[in-house]
Amino acid sequence: KVERAFIIIYPFTPESSAAPTEETDSRPLPPGWSSYITPEGLRYYVNSSSKETTWRRPSSSAEAPQRPLARQNSSPYDKTLTLLASTFSFLPAALQQLCFSWVITRHLSVSSRFLLQINCVTFPLPGEGPEQQLLKPDEWSYCDYFWTDRKDPQGTTLVTGFEVLLQKQLKGKQLQKEMAEFIHERIKIEEEYAKNLSKLSLSPLAAQEEGTLGEAWTQLKKSLHDEAEVHLKFSNKLHTEVEKPLLTFRGDNFKKDLKKYDHHIADLRKQLASRYASVEKARKALADRQKDLEVKTQQLEIKLSNKTEEDIKKARRKSTQAGDDLMRCVDLYNQTQSKWFEEMVTTSMELEKLEVERIEWIQQHLRQYTTLRHETDMFNQSMVEPVDQLLQNVDPAKDRELWVKENKTGDVRPVDMDI
Amino acid sequence: KVERAFIIIYPFTPESSAAPTEETDSRPLPPGWSSYITPEGLRYYVNSSSKETTWRRPSSSAEAPQRPLARQNSSPYDKTLTLLASTFSFLPAALQQLCFSWVITRHLSVSSRFLLQINCVTFPLPGEGPEQQLLKPDEWSYCDYFWTDRKDPQGTTLVTGFEVLLQKQLKGKQLQKEMAEFIHERIKIEEEYAKNLSKLSLSPLAAQEEGTLGEAWTQLKKSLHDEAEVHLKFSNKLHTEVEKPLLTFRGDNFKKDLKKYDHHIADLRKQLASRYASVEKARKALADRQKDLEVKTQQLEIKLSNKTEEDIKKARRKSTQAGDDLMRCVDLYNQTQSKWFEEMVTTSMELEKLEVERIEWIQQHLRQYTTLRHETDMFNQSMVEPVDQLLQNVDPAKDRELWVKENKTGDVRPVDMDI
Repeated sequence: KVERAFIIIYPFTPESSAAPTEETDSRPLPPGWSSYITPEGLRYYVNSSSKETTWRRPSSSAEAPQRPLARQNSSPYDKTLTLLASTFSFLPAALQQLCFSWVITRHLSVSSRFLLQINCVTFPLPGEGPEQQLLKPDEWSYCDYFWTDRKDPQGTTLVTGFEVLLQKQLKGKQLQKEMAEFIHERIKIEEEYAKNLSKLSLSPLAAQEEGTLGEAWTQLKKSLHDEAEVHLKFSNKLHTEVEKPLLTFRGDNFKKDLKKYDHHIADLRKQLASRYASVEKARKALADRQKDLEVKTQQLEIKLSNKTEEDIKKARRKSTQAGDDLMRCVDLYNQTQSKWFEEMVTTSMELEKLEVERIEWIQQHLRQYTTLRHETDMFNQSMVEPVDQLLQNVDPAKDRELWVKENKTGDVRPVDMDI
Repeated sequence: KVERAFIIIYPFTPESSAAPTEETDSRPLPPGWSSYITPEGLRYYVNSSSKETTWRRPSSSAEAPQRPLARQNSSPYDKTLTLLASTFSFLPAALQQLCFSWVITRHLSVSSRFLLQINCVTFPLPGEGPEQQLLKPDEWSYCDYFWTDRKDPQGTTLVTGFEVLLQKQLKGKQLQKEMAEFIHERIKIEEEYAKNLSKLSLSPLAAQEEGTLGEAWTQLKKSLHDEAEVHLKFSNKLHTEVEKPLLTFRGDNFKKDLKKYDHHIADLRKQLASRYASVEKARKALADRQKDLEVKTQQLEIKLSNKTEEDIKKARRKSTQAGDDLMRCVDLYNQTQSKWFEEMVTTSMELEKLEVERIEWIQQHLRQYTTLRHETDMFNQSMVEPVDQLLQNVDPAKDRELWVKENKTGDVRPVDMDI
């Protein structure tokens, strides 16, 4: 059972968590702007009045941003993150740093000329925007490598990165079942072997051998039964300590849980796609409105008229509304993409942890297998020791004594006949 | 192959080999008699003129023995013994002593009132005659305990002591064959086990496990094949080092040799029986002649006559002849019994040696069995060591790296959409 720890990361407050570093550029910043360094050493700029944050050094003559065309930054202050934390490998400090990275790299804007959408998900163009640092450097973490969708091996349908991760876990369940099957086959082989040895140990062959040699032979035959017991014990332990655990590790609920993750993430993608459609629709509507405004403005330049001026005012108003609509749609889109992003990170971390657990659990149980093998050979070796002992004690003279006492016909020797 | 050493024991010469001891009886011996002690401390008496030897102290008034009625002693001086000596346990000194015992106890006479014939072999009555010392004391030797015939377990036919010894050797041959059969059955069991393990090692189960865990799993499967090889090697060695030798030890010639012994001894017994019959016949003839003499002597007492006197002379001559015949028959009988005695001793010693060899040979080869068992378990144990090593090296982080490198879909993270 994975421990779920919920950690709320409050919006990142640059004033409190990062110290300003030396500016390489000596030009003064425009009024209202300050500059800071993230824990990873990245310089960023914050506008204290608009709360705008950006990687790009604002130019001195930057005007107050015009809302419809300004780069809209989702304020990091407004975001919260919930993390699924596992008990291992996450230190509080590292956790914070991770979250800073998420917040900063996720929510800082990139110029729209440098964005591309792939299946409704928005990415920076390669080489554009601030270089993205890995969320978990040096770890080859799932949360760093499965963002884009790809064609599946057949090349026909699309597979999300998340589905790749999920499939791996499901595959793991199948592999553990196959391992259990293998162990089961070994068990059957051992039981057959034990049965054969046991049967042979009861053989009456050479049972008439007597004396110390007969004892040694009897013990030799018996030792086969002892060996059989050792192998039977081995197969029983294989069953309880290796096969059964491999079969029952992560029961039916596991698949259900994975399915839940699957559906949840898929729903978020559907929602994202739908909001992307809204953005496109609003974008088109704005373009129409702007074109309409342009046309009407041209009309005014040709022929001044009160009607035209009024039309222009109306058109400008509609254009502004369309701009507002677009902003709202983009905002909703970004919120959904944010939500999906967070779910992706936490769930892929969960899957990563499950995989680590799976590997370690299997390793442990296969080590149990080798331990049982070792034990078996040692026990088996000790089964011939009594035979060794008796063979060492084989004594032809003693055997002759025993046999002669039992079988002698008469000890009085003949003498000469006498008259 | 038994080493045959021929040792000729010259007739025992009391003068040279035994010192006279103190006489408990102070009465003087009759003329011509001397007294000696055997190496075992038995006192015996020798008549230097007649070469008569006896355990009984001759009475002072003993007359010169009358040949027909005298106790006829086979002179030890005339006997020679051939011994089948084996290389072990016979020291020259002990050998001599043994032979002395044979000579003395065998050939010294016992009064005919104290003899009994069992199946034509002549024994002293229990409690009569000098106490017989074992030929090989403290050894439970075959040559001491198989002199009389007995009824076989069914109680119908008669079995000679020698036949009991021979049967034991033949039985030994059968037992070794049964042991070989047992080993053969073990070999079959091992081959079956090896075959099953080998087959399972090729199983594709969980073959899709990758990374360090996959390597460990692959080696685990392979180790089953290695185990199979160990067991196959075991079964091969069992065949060449235990089964085959057990089958071929003492080939067909062995039975032929035993048969030869059997026939030889049986022939001597037949000869003895026939000579015994002759003795009985001669005894009866003598009795008839003596009765005839008696009758004729009585006739003379009734009525003296020349004819009767002549008849008596004739009858007396015939009686003497019959006495001589009887003596000759007894002599021949005793010679045959001697010969049979010697053959019995040497052949039973041979059989005894064969049995010692048989036991030791089987002991050696069964110890080879246990050695192979030990080796097998040790080799088998070492087959899981590479698996242990790889399991120890299982590293979920490394496996994740390998898998992610191979399967990642894209590492660029999404950013906010921007207009």
